[in-house]
Amino acid sequence: IRTGMPEVIFGKGKTTEQILGIAERLLERASNVLVTRTNEEVAGRMKALYPEAEYFPACGALRVWRDRTMHGKGPLAVISAGTTDMPVALEAVVTAEVMGNDVDQIHDVGVAGIHRLFGNLDRITKARVIVVCAGMEGALPSAVGGLVSCPVIAVPTSVGYGASFHGLAALLGMLNSCASNVSVVNIDNGFGGGYVASLINRL
Amino acid sequence: IRTGMPEVIFGKGKTTEQILGIAERLLERASNVLVTRTNEEVAGRMKALYPEAEYFPACGALRVWRDRTMHGKGPLAVISAGTTDMPVALEAVVTAEVMGNDVDQIHDVGVAGIHRLFGNLDRITKARVIVVCAGMEGALPSAVGGLVSCPVIAVPTSVGYGASFHGLAALLGMLNSCASNVSVVNIDNGFGGGYVASLINRL
Amino acid sequence: IRTGMPEVIFGKGKTTEQILGIAERLLERASNVLVTRTNEEVAGRMKALYPEAEYFPACGALRVWRDRTMHGKGPLAVISAGTTDMPVALEAVVTAEVMGNDVDQIHDVGVAGIHRLFGNLDRITKARVIVVCAGMEGALPSAVGGLVSCPVIAVPTSVGYGASFHGLAALLGMLNSCASNVSVVNIDNGFGGGYVASLINRL
Amino acid sequence: IRTGMPEVIFGKGKTTEQILGIAERLLERASNVLVTRTNEEVAGRMKALYPEAEYFPACGALRVWRDRTMHGKGPLAVISAGTTDMPVALEAVVTAEVMGNDVDQIHDVGVAGIHRLFGNLDRITKARVIVVCAGMEGALPSAVGGLVSCPVIAVPTSVGYGASFHGLAALLGMLNSCASNVSVVNIDNGFGGGYVASLINRL
Amino acid sequence: IRTGMPEVIFGKGKTTEQILGIAERLLERASNVLVTRTNEEVAGRMKALYPEAEYFPACGALRVWRDRTMHGKGPLAVISAGTTDMPVALEAVVTAEVMGNDVDQIHDVGVAGIHRLFGNLDRITKARVIVVCAGMEGALPSAVGGLVSCPVIAVPTSVGYGASFHGLAALLGMLNSCASNVSVVNIDNGFGGGYVASLINRL
Amino acid sequence: IRTGMPEVIFGKGKTTEQILGIAERLLERASNVLVTRTNEEVAGRMKALYPEAEYFPACGALRVWRDRTMHGKGPLAVISAGTTDMPVALEAVVTAEVMGNDVDQIHDVGVAGIHRLFGNLDRITKARVIVVCAGMEGALPSAVGGLVSCPVIAVPTSVGYGASFHGLAALLGMLNSCASNVSVVNIDNGFGGGYVASLINRL
Amino acid sequence: IRTGMPEVIFGKGKTTEQILGIAERLLERASNVLVTRTNEEVAGRMKALYPEAEYFPACGALRVWRDRTMHGKGPLAVISAGTTDMPVALEAVVTAEVMGNDVDQIHDVGVAGIHRLFGNLDRITKARVIVVCAGMEGALPSAVGGLVSCPVIAVPTSVGYGASFHGLAALLGMLNSCASNVSVVNIDNGFGGGYVASLINRL
Amino acid sequence: IRTGMPEVIFGKGKTTEQILGIAERLLERASNVLVTRTNEEVAGRMKALYPEAEYFPACGALRVWRDRTMHGKGPLAVISAGTTDMPVALEAVVTAEVMGNDVDQIHDVGVAGIHRLFGNLDRITKARVIVVCAGMEGALPSAVGGLVSCPVIAVPTSVGYGASFHGLAALLGMLNSCASNVSVVNIDNGFGGGYVASLINRL
Ligand SMILES: Nc1ncnc2c1ncn2[C@@H]1O[C@H](COP(=O)(O)O)[C@@H](O)[C@H]1O
Ligand SMILES: Nc1ncnc2c1ncn2[C@@H]1O[C@H](COP(=O)(O)O)[C@@H](O)[C@H]1O
Ligand SMILES: Nc1ncnc2c1ncn2[C@@H]1O[C@H](COP(=O)(O)O)[C@@H](O)[C@H]1O
Ligand SMILES: Nc1ncnc2c1ncn2[C@@H]1O[C@H](COP(=O)(O)O)[C@@H](O)[C@H]1O
Ligand SMILES: [Mg+2]
Ligand SMILES: [Mg+2]
Ligand SMILES: [Mg+2]
Ligand SMILES: [Mg+2]
Ligand SMILES: [Mg+2]
Ligand SMILES: [Mg+2]
Ligand SMILES: [Mg+2]
Ligand SMILES: [Mg+2]
Repeated sequence: IRTGMPEVIFGKGKTTEQILGIAERLLERASNVLVTRTNEEVAGRMKALYPEAEYFPACGALRVWRDRTMHGKGPLAVISAGTTDMPVALEAVVTAEVMGNDVDQIHDVGVAGIHRLFGNLDRITKARVIVVCAGMEGALPSAVGGLVSCPVIAVPTSVGYGASFHGLAALLGMLNSCASNVSVVNIDNGFGGGYVASLINRL
Repeated sequence: IRTGMPEVIFGKGKTTEQILGIAERLLERASNVLVTRTNEEVAGRMKALYPEAEYFPACGALRVWRDRTMHGKGPLAVISAGTTDMPVALEAVVTAEVMGNDVDQIHDVGVAGIHRLFGNLDRITKARVIVVCAGMEGALPSAVGGLVSCPVIAVPTSVGYGASFHGLAALLGMLNSCASNVSVVNIDNGFGGGYVASLINRL
Repeated sequence: IRTGMPEVIFGKGKTTEQILGIAERLLERASNVLVTRTNEEVAGRMKALYPEAEYFPACGALRVWRDRTMHGKGPLAVISAGTTDMPVALEAVVTAEVMGNDVDQIHDVGVAGIHRLFGNLDRITKARVIVVCAGMEGALPSAVGGLVSCPVIAVPTSVGYGASFHGLAALLGMLNSCASNVSVVNIDNGFGGGYVASLINRL
Repeated sequence: IRTGMPEVIFGKGKTTEQILGIAERLLERASNVLVTRTNEEVAGRMKALYPEAEYFPACGALRVWRDRTMHGKGPLAVISAGTTDMPVALEAVVTAEVMGNDVDQIHDVGVAGIHRLFGNLDRITKARVIVVCAGMEGALPSAVGGLVSCPVIAVPTSVGYGASFHGLAALLGMLNSCASNVSVVNIDNGFGGGYVASLINRL
Repeated sequence: IRTGMPEVIFGKGKTTEQILGIAERLLERASNVLVTRTNEEVAGRMKALYPEAEYFPACGALRVWRDRTMHGKGPLAVISAGTTDMPVALEAVVTAEVMGNDVDQIHDVGVAGIHRLFGNLDRITKARVIVVCAGMEGALPSAVGGLVSCPVIAVPTSVGYGASFHGLAALLGMLNSCASNVSVVNIDNGFGGGYVASLINRL
Repeated sequence: IRTGMPEVIFGKGKTTEQILGIAERLLERASNVLVTRTNEEVAGRMKALYPEAEYFPACGALRVWRDRTMHGKGPLAVISAGTTDMPVALEAVVTAEVMGNDVDQIHDVGVAGIHRLFGNLDRITKARVIVVCAGMEGALPSAVGGLVSCPVIAVPTSVGYGASFHGLAALLGMLNSCASNVSVVNIDNGFGGGYVASLINRL
Repeated sequence: IRTGMPEVIFGKGKTTEQILGIAERLLERASNVLVTRTNEEVAGRMKALYPEAEYFPACGALRVWRDRTMHGKGPLAVISAGTTDMPVALEAVVTAEVMGNDVDQIHDVGVAGIHRLFGNLDRITKARVIVVCAGMEGALPSAVGGLVSCPVIAVPTSVGYGASFHGLAALLGMLNSCASNVSVVNIDNGFGGGYVASLINRL
Repeated sequence: IRTGMPEVIFGKGKTTEQILGIAERLLERASNVLVTRTNEEVAGRMKALYPEAEYFPACGALRVWRDRTMHGKGPLAVISAGTTDMPVALEAVVTAEVMGNDVDQIHDVGVAGIHRLFGNLDRITKARVIVVCAGMEGALPSAVGGLVSCPVIAVPTSVGYGASFHGLAALLGMLNSCASNVSVVNIDNGFGGGYVASLINRL
């Protein structure tokens, strides 16, 4: 039933050998494999075996993307608030692409400079589903949610310091969003944001 | 752009007069109005003015549902874990219905009696999008999420006592779901769950 | 040194007799007295003694405002996100007025309907100092802060439920504001917001 | 009274010399000694002195297991949710074995792939007492608890990130388990889980 | 497989009619039924229908105990720290009795008067399994755990004020117990403590 | 409208190349640039390009301060409690200076040696606006706030250990200040404190 | 060994009959009995039996104080910050008196009006041991601690709102006191403060 | 007034040069100086200048103890629960000694082996004041407090893992102690414990 879904390996806490072993086994039957939270060493070993493998050092994602059939029925936007939220946004982008989406990336449009958000209003309203990544006060999903009528997946990031409490402030902000079209995934879970958005975009 | 969307009033913290005033103004131009977190008094006053108004005392929702056009493209399931989670689930049901969905309700299927969940497997796998309401340990969305490939909106409830910390345990559980298709709304936010699921089901 | 400052009584936790006793003593030498967090009973007793006393039931503030000299050097704006944030905003307004300010009130302009905020842009940018009251995700101070270059005092409110944790979500959001001109007072402390803004507006 | 109990040294925060000193003293009169949370260096030194010592690098446990009398009256199962929970599960296994149990290990059966749990139903229902190790949402003990009628000891692990808050999410989930046969030990306390289960299995 | 197990209804959050309905249905086929967290009204209605029903107002438990077969293989002790912990201890006692145990109750033996605990040493060491209920600092399970070699089920209670944070202090204390034979259930969950202990005592 | 404002780069989480790129672009049109939370490497590279750049290793701030026009209308004081709070205080000083203020620094005047605070009373009362940096119990802003009638910006620091919880104790203390003229910024946010105070001092 | 110690009953959570029963039993052999956290009803019943009983409605303490021997070797001061902290301070006073101390009460001397504290410097420095009660930011013990060299027992109170989190802010502040002579008891535990200070004053 | 008090330097966060500078200045007029939380480097430099300096690597304390007059009026006991609590206990010992006390050390007497505590009953009851250091569940101060009638200063330690939350569990336990003679200092604050106890022992 899950045709066109990539196989996914959560790299954190696994050894290089474990990841390679699982990846090899999966790639015997799957076209596409995504490894999240991995590192240069795994990337090097994988590229030696699968030259088509792409590694994204900013977020630690590794992708073997052979079957590039589009499954998304419209544009999927990934929006981020600040440049330090980019790694999380990138994880969402890499995930959504390997799941067959045409991803429109809009970065550095946090609420304290809300004119930049408005400068992209047409791209934002064109999206069929949106992933919004933001740290610190996590206000961007509410602002975006109020501008569109499509579903918004909010991804709090651990960007910040002090009373951000490693993403807790952003998480709580997003859960209390006064925009009704917002739902939330775990702190720094760009993968989850991209995955849920991709499922929605297939419908 | 938001055709077929009901107008919604969040009743908590508003006086009877405030709610009635807003409702009357909205009903001049909108077919459907939903009031959440309200009470018998408001319900009585509304029914006197709009005999078609329905009140759901278990969750405090009040609905004027005139335009019953279906907007959902498939079955939308609302699943709950225990009988005390029913009020939150009901808020999701009332919301999803007034937004034009055919809602399939599956209750009392918590993970500690997982055979009851399996006894409803065909209904669950048939859904195009699912809302799952659970308190205490909040494990049901993960179990459901693992059985289906559609999007699952998890609604933690404040049901429980002691270390449930008013729904915090369930909320954290759902945010950490190992099922990739799960996203989460605020504790007891049945409305949010039903709303997001309805948006998805229109796509 | 504090000419034109009202005397202030924090009413919560004081008996009617205690408040009346303190107020009488203060009014012998002070023109203006403000009582916060008090009730109808105190208000009735005070009005019997001081007919000019005004009571604001929505926020429980009571004011004897005899010396109405203006001390503010420009417009002081009080902005609130939702109608349920009004009591906190009102405490700020009542405080700022009794401290000699011309207060411009802008309500119901939360970030999920950001066009309403923009519709008031001229009033907002005209202010010399701004108090912003918001509950739930507390995103409004960041949005306002990004639109103006004057100081913004953010007042988180306990409005919300579930993961708002009685105002904690809004508080953390405001402390992590990506707008540099924002500082924060305690949850529901409309008085503090109005007071700090009034001090600034005298400079 | 505690015949057949191993002597246990909690290695964390002790120097190599301290651990060796305690171990030598204990091994003069005890057949079996278990050191938890230790390292390669201690392991090397111990093996030089006691060639029969076994070291388990994945969890840092070190065991001198001379008296292998069985004390458990039936199978003791150790179940884990994901591969990253393995170190904690292994600490439970090593403990239960050195306390004289026949341990049945069932790994990688988290609730998001609940069919894998069901594929082991006969082994699970055969157990006289069960230790369940899970991180993230910590839902597995509830699912297992609902399938069996024997006591289940739940061990939350610190596996996860973001809103797992170093195992807090799993801990709260397990404490709120809707399965009545579940009790809980500290986060990552595989030793405690194996120990309590072993005591129960002797009865 | 669960012969001799009572049927249990969690009364909190259920209406009188709901509880009576479930109880009647269950009592058609079950000998024993336990309702926890219920009230005088339910108790009165139940006694009218089932004269053998016993109600325990101190903890809100209601019991129909017809089949009084003993299933416990030895004495099950329920120990509590202070008189205000008694309601939780009583819930454990009522549960353990209806599950077929001979319960030895030892109350008011908190660690600040540790001689009272020692005065009961023979009864404590005779037990096959022990439930320990304590609020405030929750130290009693560690003290008891150190005196016996049988399993100890710790039940933190919400007794206390201030920094007890509704039982959190006791809960954390018990989870960090330096006695290895201690496992823990939810705050105020006397039922869970009695249930787990009863399961263990059948082995 | 923001004449005389420096351009500010938040260095944390940015690469050396990113910071240099942004700084160069900004310095084409801006006289003054401030980089916070940066390091020796960036400082070296910047000094090579802009010999007038100053680096403050104690707090990681880097400043290009060409236009030294005074904008502050009176003395701006930066007060700190202990020597370990100095880095945060320094960030405030560097910020306030580059924004055109005459900064009066008063250090090591924590409340446990309150005579040192009083020894500086004339300097403190002369200030037009005050930034107060304190860790541990964060009591200094209340004491200062009670001595002056000007606005006080409180900056909690993460100095301390144990129950300071990385600045949470100081933050909560400051938010609950019984001095009405106190508002608060994020933990360790010396920049924010200096910035808000500078805005106020321009009025 | 504890000559001159009163017998103490913690009234919270006990029925009137329970308290009366314990009190009567204790008064057969003890001269002095203190009941904390009780109410008018108990007070009335006690006064009927023991006309010398004194009831303190502001804090709910009830005292039978027959043996008025002084045990304190010098003045014991009880200091409070605001009028709403008085109930907790009163509990400390009542306790210290019944334990044989000459209590010097100094109220309403919070740090925001630090001149009031200094106005009492001679009384404060004369004390042999000091209890300091304060809510909100809990800064008073640090200020007092810095002025004296005797032991200071800090009692955080739950006075405040919002980010005081029911006394947590004051508690954390006091635990992080930069004055070395400060130790802390539970939130609102005036009894504990008075008790510890009395023990110290006997030495 | 503070005759016989050492000068104290809190080493954490200070550079070697800063500590040496302060120490030299203090030693010109003070007989005794204590530096806490410092390191080998500082110790080496200090010993070169002051050969009588003693360094305690287990807790990082450094002491110049020239004036060894006894100020304590009786034995001061320092008790610890486990071997890993020793560093904190040692800080208390070093502090109490340099403040002129005869310190009786009793280690490794945690509540789970309560017979070891009882084996030292005569030493414990002989003490005039007691410092108790414990991590994990922090139960030892309650047990000790119940055995003696002198003041007990409880020092929670950060020893433990998981739900000890870096000493929070022990801290909360001690604040909720059911022994009335217990007061508490910050987590790991052995210095504070020794200091307060020394002040008391002078009385
Ligand atoms: N709503 C409020 N929140 C916080 N502080 C307040 C409030 N109202 C008054 N205050 C402060 O409380 C002080 C008076 O406290 P009191 O002497 O207890 O009446 C005033 O000077 C204000 O600083
Ligand atoms: N991983 C562990 N977690 C919690 N407790 C442990 C662990 N390993 C050993 N222990 C306990 O620590 C005790 C030994 O502590 P110690 O005397 O400090 O070595 C043993 O009797 C066990 O009860
Ligand atoms: N006091 C209690 N605390 C926790 N769980 C309980 C309690 N009383 C009953 N239960 C559980 O609740 C289940 C019944 O739930 P319900 O179907 O909602 O009545 C029983 O099987 C027990 O597992
Ligand atoms: N307000 C209070 N807060 C904390 N402990 C108290 C308080 N009042 C009394 N106690 C303690 O409670 C003990 C009596 O408890 P109980 O036997 O439950 O009445 C006394 O010995 C005191 O140690
Ligand atoms: Mg929402
Ligand atoms: Mg997910
Ligand atoms: Mg800011
Ligand atoms: Mg349970
Ligand atoms: Mg344990
Ligand atoms: Mg304030
Ligand atoms: Mg201290
Ligand atoms: Mg106490």
